[in-house]
Amino acid sequence: MSLKKISENKLFDGSYQRHSHFSAANQCEMTFGIFLPQAATQHKVPVLYWLSGLTCNDENFMQKAGAQRVADELGIAIVAPDTSPRGETVADDENGAYDLGLGAGFYVNATQTPWAKHYQMYSYVSEELPALIEAEFPVTNKKAICGHSMGGHGAITIGLANSDSYESISAFSPITNPINCAWGRKALTAYLGDSEDAWRQYDSCELIKKYSAVSKPPLLVDQGDADEFFPAQLLTQNLIDAVAENNYPANIRMQTGFDHSYFFIASFIEQHLRFHAEYLLAK
Amino acid sequence: MSLKKISENKLFDGSYQRHSHFSAANQCEMTFGIFLPQAATQHKVPVLYWLSGLTCNDENFMQKAGAQRVADELGIAIVAPDTSPRGETVADDENGAYDLGLGAGFYVNATQTPWAKHYQMYSYVSEELPALIEAEFPVTNKKAICGHSMGGHGAITIGLANSDSYESISAFSPITNPINCAWGRKALTAYLGDSEDAWRQYDSCELIKKYSAVSKPPLLVDQGDADEFFPAQLLTQNLIDAVAENNYPANIRMQTGFDHSYFFIASFIEQHLRFHAEYLLAK
Repeated sequence: MSLKKISENKLFDGSYQRHSHFSAANQCEMTFGIFLPQAATQHKVPVLYWLSGLTCNDENFMQKAGAQRVADELGIAIVAPDTSPRGETVADDENGAYDLGLGAGFYVNATQTPWAKHYQMYSYVSEELPALIEAEFPVTNKKAICGHSMGGHGAITIGLANSDSYESISAFSPITNPINCAWGRKALTAYLGDSEDAWRQYDSCELIKKYSAVSKPPLLVDQGDADEFFPAQLLTQNLIDAVAENNYPANIRMQTGFDHSYFFIASFIEQHLRFHAEYLLAK
Repeated sequence: MSLKKISENKLFDGSYQRHSHFSAANQCEMTFGIFLPQAATQHKVPVLYWLSGLTCNDENFMQKAGAQRVADELGIAIVAPDTSPRGETVADDENGAYDLGLGAGFYVNATQTPWAKHYQMYSYVSEELPALIEAEFPVTNKKAICGHSMGGHGAITIGLANSDSYESISAFSPITNPINCAWGRKALTAYLGDSEDAWRQYDSCELIKKYSAVSKPPLLVDQGDADEFFPAQLLTQNLIDAVAENNYPANIRMQTGFDHSYFFIASFIEQHLRFHAEYLLAK
């Protein structure tokens, strides 16, 4: 696989780089950002994968969350992929809706026309990208996963379905139960077809209710109570109920006065990084 | 004066708000952002004014610098104005150049047609905006000023020319000597006319060489040595020489490997905030 470096910026004592590469899963050029802490110049470091929400690309989190200060201190790399395939041959919603198509891959493997050819974000994020990162950068195979909104949904579903691969999982304002909210039902219908049976593997609440694997990566969730999409699109209570029903190790916190923006993420990302560090840096 | 609130976000334990108002100086609606730390709910707090660079508006710093965490901890408000007047009646460069007109006010009071009607950013930032902020928000009249690139130029020139009003001054990658660089000469010619005598009041090096006021706000400057505009547009050595020539209290630091981006600002903004806090919070 050949990486093309787009840019590199010094940031704290580390390095923020953007690269593109041809994705076998998505059959198009994909761009990602990686922050390598100073520690990576001396030894391999673990990786936190960040999944962004609707309308975002690989840059939003790296520019707005203020995560690199603490990642540099802790010695953790951060990798932020794009939120969908991109390019001239990639299908988009015919009306240019923000919640379907470009910028809205929902971290699933699409099975329906015209999406299936490129929209294989589940395989990309869970398999192809980590393999590439581990081959090309000074990182270990220790991984954690975190995300926001649609990316919180992606982080929890990918983390649970690949629980041997991730030490810990966290999310800001996740879409916890997409089979039961408007954003989720629209996207899952388009990408996976009408049968709801095909949707459940991509639903955090469904996965937690039926969870039976031995490995249980601890889960941290923050949700603002002034979030403009709460509760209708996020259905946080359903995640609280699912966790209780199956006794899954989770800490789901309501945060007073916070909304759905990156300002919420900036306010709590340090706590998420220190949460993941407990597991990523454990001997 | 009537403020129109555009938005409000909780951020750490403080509040980030955007407002617009009709500016008497600029004769148009102006937008600014203000971060109020939690301390401002209990007592009046001092203010750090932030001036952004070419192509920016009031939002870039508030979204990308990660300054609010430390400002909240220290109990300092931050105010970020726009970089030029805006609106349908406001002149812009006829070719839409990024370094003249909209987004490029250079913090001067223009005297030339067609700029003079609206481009009065010097008066706006040094007089009108602080008066508005002090009338409408829980802040004291203790002020410091900081900026980046064109905004670093603005911070140093406004701070020096109004040294009784500012406790301290700092800048990232400032245009230190606009009368001698391409960006500066283009803008100063357009806004002030061909006579270089009119330019010198807006040149940090010229102001420092002739500085004679009793009050000498301490100056902190950070400059990356991998900055794509260094040295040609920034002429940092000329500032170092001017400071030495007139024994002005300044700490001008070269930072290895850093470029002109907000990633540089994010890496050092905490040090700038703690520098200003020494003076803003002194009893």
